[in-house]
Amino acid sequence: MSTPTSVPRVVVIGGGFGGLTAARALRHAPVDLLLIDRRNHHVFQPLLYQVATAGLSPGDIAAPIRWILRHQSNARVWMGDVVSIDTGGRHLRLADGTDVPYDYLLVAAGATHAYFGHDEWHQYAPGLKTLEDALDARRRVLLAFEQAERETDKAAQRRLLTFVVIGGGPTGVEMAGSLAEIARHTLAHDFRAIDPESARVILIEGGPNILGVYPEDLSAFARRALERLGVNVWTGSVVTSVTAGKVHVGGETIEAGTIIWAAGVSASPLGAKLGVPLDRAGRVLVNDDLTVPGHPEIFVIGDLAALKAADGRWLPGVAQVAIQQGRRAGANLARQLRGEPTQPFRYRNLGNLATIGRNKAVADLPGWKFKGYLAWLFWLFVHVMNLVGFRNRLSVLTQWAFSYITFQRSVRLITFDTADADADDAMPRS
Amino acid sequence: MSTPTSVPRVVVIGGGFGGLTAARALRHAPVDLLLIDRRNHHVFQPLLYQVATAGLSPGDIAAPIRWILRHQSNARVWMGDVVSIDTGGRHLRLADGTDVPYDYLLVAAGATHAYFGHDEWHQYAPGLKTLEDALDARRRVLLAFEQAERETDKAAQRRLLTFVVIGGGPTGVEMAGSLAEIARHTLAHDFRAIDPESARVILIEGGPNILGVYPEDLSAFARRALERLGVNVWTGSVVTSVTAGKVHVGGETIEAGTIIWAAGVSASPLGAKLGVPLDRAGRVLVNDDLTVPGHPEIFVIGDLAALKAADGRWLPGVAQVAIQQGRRAGANLARQLRGEPTQPFRYRNLGNLATIGRNKAVADLPGWKFKGYLAWLFWLFVHVMNLVGFRNRLSVLTQWAFSYITFQRSVRLITFDTADADADDAMPRS
Repeated sequence: MSTPTSVPRVVVIGGGFGGLTAARALRHAPVDLLLIDRRNHHVFQPLLYQVATAGLSPGDIAAPIRWILRHQSNARVWMGDVVSIDTGGRHLRLADGTDVPYDYLLVAAGATHAYFGHDEWHQYAPGLKTLEDALDARRRVLLAFEQAERETDKAAQRRLLTFVVIGGGPTGVEMAGSLAEIARHTLAHDFRAIDPESARVILIEGGPNILGVYPEDLSAFARRALERLGVNVWTGSVVTSVTAGKVHVGGETIEAGTIIWAAGVSASPLGAKLGVPLDRAGRVLVNDDLTVPGHPEIFVIGDLAALKAADGRWLPGVAQVAIQQGRRAGANLARQLRGEPTQPFRYRNLGNLATIGRNKAVADLPGWKFKGYLAWLFWLFVHVMNLVGFRNRLSVLTQWAFSYITFQRSVRLITFDTADADADDAMPRS
Repeated sequence: MSTPTSVPRVVVIGGGFGGLTAARALRHAPVDLLLIDRRNHHVFQPLLYQVATAGLSPGDIAAPIRWILRHQSNARVWMGDVVSIDTGGRHLRLADGTDVPYDYLLVAAGATHAYFGHDEWHQYAPGLKTLEDALDARRRVLLAFEQAERETDKAAQRRLLTFVVIGGGPTGVEMAGSLAEIARHTLAHDFRAIDPESARVILIEGGPNILGVYPEDLSAFARRALERLGVNVWTGSVVTSVTAGKVHVGGETIEAGTIIWAAGVSASPLGAKLGVPLDRAGRVLVNDDLTVPGHPEIFVIGDLAALKAADGRWLPGVAQVAIQQGRRAGANLARQLRGEPTQPFRYRNLGNLATIGRNKAVADLPGWKFKGYLAWLFWLFVHVMNLVGFRNRLSVLTQWAFSYITFQRSVRLITFDTADADADDAMPRS
């Protein structure tokens, strides 16, 4: 990098909520900022389940990172894979061998799925963290219905039309509700040999309640709403193993055509490359100003950071925390540049929201909890307003209006990896 | 299939323009119709280049086949790969071993790219026939800009920013114009190390003119319009070989980061499985009622059929021909069921349309040719009106309005095959 030595080089790893907010917070700072992400796009993760259930296109919930930062003249964006970090020499290395020096480093590399030490479950039960994950889930769900239509064996058909979602947090609840709706409404008239309504959707949660972090009455409301949609909710059910097309819950075995993992995440392996203490989930134990012990020039934020809130509880891995930490880390870095002391991070909980199907939600805001249609409208408003870019907001609103009126899901396409598509040229091209 | 023997079984292979139109033409016929396609969706192929250049999402130009036929109660839809056809025993076999008997067969399997006997060029210069092709092209184009931004070697950067489109027909012209626009407008502010406007777009055509089937003045207008957008148009230039990142034109070699093939197609290999005479391009030489010689129960239509128009010229492989043949084949099949004689196919040429960039087009209609902005508005109207489904029309219009006003392309996402995404878990997830 041929930048004048007088301007500090700031490298931000990760273009998620945390990394992007930190980069934006430094827009007026006298730095040469480089944001590195393995993807070219930021993804609005809370709506990934909508892509997985064919309600939205990938383009509706994602935007190119360099487009988001196009007017920030002190920022550059690279697409690259960080493979090692030399905290002593202050540089990092990309997968293609490029060496990137830094004066300040901000790591916002996020989390990936966690299978509780059973990584082999991944192939049978993919999670939902990236656009590719969501497209993979969409392909699996739609293919299950296609195969069921052609299946003559009733037991096999029943298996194909069984969908299991593991994990009763917001993503699992939203995914299960959405799957039930597809079967009941969207596909109702499209099949001849099967009745899509006979599809079974099973939501499995190890704890006593779904949406465990919510107040009990909201959690109970969500359960009833899901059950009305036709979802079987299994609480207190710990998954002991996942094999091909099978979920084992204690002594019971569910045969399922599609299994979706929404049960847990673990921190990005990049945290371990910093050579500082981690918690059991692989998260970096950060100082209260979000720097790393012994390295005031390194900040870690978002899902990769482990920090306790004022009440002594660990901060959850949600977008709100990442955004607020990104703002604080950017401000603290700017304070260091000016020779001022850093300030501790204070989390302000703005509340939790989860949707159940097409017109119900639960909202747990500070001092105010509500549910039902009003909560759903509020959920809609909050999510659409937070989507990056005017075009995405407009497109998502149009699509939702369309879905809502017609019960249709607009993006029911099964696309394959390019490699697959090329392999078989003997087939009709539509 | 457990259908009463009294109802004739009609199998349609292919859910493109021809197959879908034929299926719709039989909606009131007393048949048990089964449409088989390897994809679950119909693609509006004339707009594939818009997906390849990040202007539209796959969902905007495609719709599930079973959704299109959802209200046609005599029709079923299967996703499947036809691998063999036994015309004597009147049944066909799918890749998974399923045996499908038929009384009438309608083959509308279309065409695939043709590399003039050089299939090895395919890996270096992908074509544009499926959604997967278009997504692959989009990934290549956007990755070239990303890599150029990180490249310090000027020669390598110049190579990455060189885009070659081979073939000066409508698809090639539309693709080249669209690529030039991306560089000049869409990406203008997004990069720091490169000037996207320095990108070179070269359109190579073997014949003396681009848009060879158009009148000479429209063809010349299209050339000037492309050149004003910054496209280098090389006519009378025959590509002698394509290797990794290189296009050889006679003695010259162009080093290019991205090469797109728009030069030719060949008929689906399914035609050869019918055991009837083919032309040199592998198309089935059909009777003038679109049946196959010796098999009045087999119809072949669209890009897979070879038939001469009244003026003695071979019919081109365009959507119009496929649609009109689908209508005629469906009607002729219904006539056979009623014991009436079939009627010959008569092609009614409705004209040709091609667009050059964001506000110019050429229109060659019967008795009327025009060009420029008016032709572009006409092109817009015709294409949007022909999109399957109200939602697609609305979404495409919204996106185009947005693109037009802001010069932005909304779907600039680089997504990878799922297999790739899983392989490297050590990276930051955005």
